[in-house]
This record gives sequence, structure tokens and C-alpha cells, in this order.
Amino acid sequence: MILLDGKSLSQKIKHDIKYQVDSLKSNGKRPPHLVAILIGENPASQTYVTAKKKSCEEIGFDSTVIKFPVTISQNKLINEIEKINLDDEIDGLIVQLPLPNHIDPSIVISTICYKKDVDGFHPINLGNMMLQQPCYFPATPMGIMSLIENYNIETNGKNCLIIGRSNIVGTPLSVLLSRNSKYANCTVTLAHSRTKDINLLTKKADIIVMALGIPKFLKNDMIKDSVVIIDVGINRIKSDKSKSGWTLVGDVDFQSVKDKCSYITPVPGGVGPMTIISLLRNTLLSYKRVIYK
Amino acid sequence: MILLDGKSLSQKIKHDIKYQVDSLKSNGKRPPHLVAILIGENPASQTYVTAKKKSCEEIGFDSTVIKFPVTISQNKLINEIEKINLDDEIDGLIVQLPLPNHIDPSIVISTICYKKDVDGFHPINLGNMMLQQPCYFPATPMGIMSLIENYNIETNGKNCLIIGRSNIVGTPLSVLLSRNSKYANCTVTLAHSRTKDINLLTKKADIIVMALGIPKFLKNDMIKDSVVIIDVGINRIKSDKSKSGWTLVGDVDFQSVKDKCSYITPVPGGVGPMTIISLLRNTLLSYKRVIYK
Repeated sequence: MILLDGKSLSQKIKHDIKYQVDSLKSNGKRPPHLVAILIGENPASQTYVTAKKKSCEEIGFDSTVIKFPVTISQNKLINEIEKINLDDEIDGLIVQLPLPNHIDPSIVISTICYKKDVDGFHPINLGNMMLQQPCYFPATPMGIMSLIENYNIETNGKNCLIIGRSNIVGTPLSVLLSRNSKYANCTVTLAHSRTKDINLLTKKADIIVMALGIPKFLKNDMIKDSVVIIDVGINRIKSDKSKSGWTLVGDVDFQSVKDKCSYITPVPGGVGPMTIISLLRNTLLSYKRVIYK
Repeated sequence: MILLDGKSLSQKIKHDIKYQVDSLKSNGKRPPHLVAILIGENPASQTYVTAKKKSCEEIGFDSTVIKFPVTISQNKLINEIEKINLDDEIDGLIVQLPLPNHIDPSIVISTICYKKDVDGFHPINLGNMMLQQPCYFPATPMGIMSLIENYNIETNGKNCLIIGRSNIVGTPLSVLLSRNSKYANCTVTLAHSRTKDINLLTKKADIIVMALGIPKFLKNDMIKDSVVIIDVGINRIKSDKSKSGWTLVGDVDFQSVKDKCSYITPVPGGVGPMTIISLLRNTLLSYKRVIYK
């Protein structure tokens, strides 16, 4: 079994981006600038935004976190986004999800200028992705594609099972892995909560992507030999072994499957760091006007 | 076996639209107006455009076909589209595909104002479709969804195999059938030219959508009892039985499967008329500003 080491790969990519940013700065240019909007006090959201800010600082990006109280109105939020859209010195804008119930996330996301939508959630970016046109890929699917490419995993004609149909992971990844390109061309099955006989599907898959949100769901007796496993799950469960009383586990029972699969992403240190690095890569692409003028 | 009679269903929908158009006209309002751009002399394209124009006339829409020679430049075409975008009395604009090689279809399609993109091919419409936001569905997937709904076919938790991954049929339909809504919630597998062991997949499927372009590909020994078959194929093959020497057949060997399946679309008279009617429905939605203001 080979670990798909997202931590190490993301460090390599960070190093490469930092080199480019250093070079920009030494030429008197401003660095790329990512703005994150954080609403309310959700602890998981705060953790994610802090991690993104820290990564920005490590590679020399400018990074701003704008915090609003949970009571902010949708109109006020939209006004703030529109101001940022017009600011030429901001390259990327993300709004940390989830949002409070009185705010419609689809209105908020489609308000972000698609040229600054480095999360890749805007309809124009998703539509362009479907049409194989230049776009920002959603960060998690993009991170998974990078892992597959970097480890040179054979995907052509393989049966790929994706469990979980969210707009930010499962559905866009199903489009990316089924299209006609080198690290794709899979026969993709997209499974979800209504799927029957999931074990029959997992046993036939050459590649399994778990994005279900159920701790340790995938076990040894559900998979065939030499399957490739990508674990998108990040679940906090109680643990006697950690000081905090909690530990992070994926949607895969790692200990159960590790000697049967050919490749697997660990949790943490697999897909997670690749998601953050994809956001930074998109921000650099935006700065350089590579995707959109 | 029950025929999924697209011809009859499309007539019903036409009748309903005509009633609405008559009512608009008797109130002194202009009818909806669909413009089709046809480039060159491709016989199939001419046939499709003529059929669309005829359908418009039957229901009382205004309909304009703008013809350009195959030598038209991309810039000239874009200029013409931009003029139509600005014309408040045109509700829908389609550009008949395929385009000559010197014209990039993705640039042309993304030039069409998404509010008039009644073919549902614009990235904004595809992205909104993926996000389950209001949009114009691509006409063929929309027609298929209407057939499924009209015949009240059970889709929830069913294994659906779509063969063919085009941007206008297979890929968007895979998104529509896998999402969480009443006539959807399928476990969708998207197969294509790189798929291995297609027979294993067809034998396990509860619903099969053929959009492959190979005449009479799907046969009796490849399917299980009571499968639902949607045949998107329109293939012209030689025939001794017709005066013209040609006949139209689908991607399904109808005679071979007809006694084994539970539902099937005939060719012609199944998906084809539903595609045209979907275009007209989108044009009416555009006229009424239902999807976009």
C-alpha cells in the first residue's frame, strides 16, 4: 500500500508558489491577495479560515479575514462582496460556508465575481468545468485530481465509485473523472443516501472516493484487492488516546483496509491539505490572469 | 412493454403552449420569438432547423432563421449574436451545431446572452443546473426528464446507466438524474468509449439511457427483465423497405428488446420530439422572464 501523502505534496507545491511570490516581491510587485469572509462563531469555520490564512502567510500571499456577526443581513453581505469585486488589488474572495439560515448561499456565491471565485463554486466556473473550458476547479476535487496525477494513478477505463453527491465535492468530481482526459476517462458511478446495495458497488470499484461524512464507513470486507481509496471525510470522534478527548477520522476505516488497497489518502494529511493548496493555486492563477483576463 | 410516446406527449405540451400564445395575442401582446442561426449547408442541420421553425409556427411563436455561408468569420458571427442579445423582442437564440472548424463553438455559445440561451448550453445555465438553481435545462435532458415524469417512472434509488458523455446529453443528464429530487435520486453510472465490460453494466441497470451513436447497439441479451430504456440515438441506415433507401434507427435494437423491457422510447417519435418541445418551453419561460428577470 502506498500513502497518497497530501501533506508532503502540498508542501512541495507551497514551496513552488512561495518561490514565485518571492520573485514577484523582489521585482517590486505586490503579492497575490486572498480575502476570506467569516460570518459568526462556528468553531469549524474558524479553524478552516485560520488554516487558510496561515497557509497564505507561509507562502507570502497577502491575506485578509473579514469577520461579520451572525446577524449580518444578506443585503449588507452582498454590498461588501460587491465592494471587494471592484478592488483590483484583491485576487481571490471566499465566503466560508455554512452561512446562517437567513442568508441564501447560492445568492451569495453568485454575487462573487467569477474571476475572483477561487473556491470554484460560482455557476460560471462549474459550467465551464463541465464544458472543459478554462475555469477555477472547486478546491477539493482539484486537490484530488492533483494527487491522482502526482502519483500517476491509472484511471483510464477504471470503475470509479464516488459516494456523496455534494455540489462542492462529489458531483463536480464525477464530471472531472468521467471526462476525456489523461488522468480521467473513468466509468464513474455517483452514489448517495438513496443508493441501494452499496456493498455491491464498493466491491466492484477500482477507485473509491468517500465523501459521505460517516466515520470509518468503508471496511475491508467491502472492497476488492488493490483498490485506490480517496478519503474526503473529516469526522471528529471521541478518543481516549488524545489529550483533547477527540480525534479526526475519515469515512474509511484506515486500519481495516490499509493492507488490501493499493493507494490510500490518510486522514488527516491526505485530501485536506490538498484542498487548501488548491485554493492558493487558484488565487495565483487569478493574480496572473491565467484563466480569465 | 409501454411505449414512452414522445410524439403524443409533445403534442399535448404544444397544445398547452399554443393556448397560452393565443391568449397573449388576443390580449394584444406579441408572441414569443425564437431565432435560429444556421451556418453552411449541412443537411442534418437544415433538417433540424426546419423542424424547429415548423414547431414554432404550429404554436404561434415568431420564428426567424438567419442563414450565413460556411465562410462567415467568427468575429462576424459574434457581432451578429451580440446584436440579437440586445433585441428586446427576441426571447430565444440558438446556434445550430456543428459549426465550421474555424469557429470555436464554446466562444460562440458563451457569447449568447444566458437569458436567451434556450438550448441550455451556456456555462451559466449548466452551472446553475449543477447547483439546482433556476436555469434553462439542455433541451434533450429536459425532454427525457419530462417523459420520465409524465409516465411516473420510479427512479428513486434505481441503478441508471447512461452510455455517452456528451456535453449536451450524457453529462448533464447524469447530473439531473443523480440529484436529490422526485424524478431523480438515481445511482447514476456514466459510461463512454473507454468503459470496459459494458455488458456487465447494462445487465445490472434498472434504467438505461443510450446516447452513443451506434445503430442498434443494445440487444436483448445485454439487459435484465423490466428495464426502462431511453434511446437518444438517431442513426440513418440503409434500408430496402423505404422509398428513400434509408431509415432512422436508434442506438437500441428495438425489435430485440421490446418484449423484455418495461418502458422504451421509440425512434423516431420518442426523445426527438421531446427535445424540440423543450426548446419551445424554454423560449416561453424566457418570454415570461420566469428563470431570469
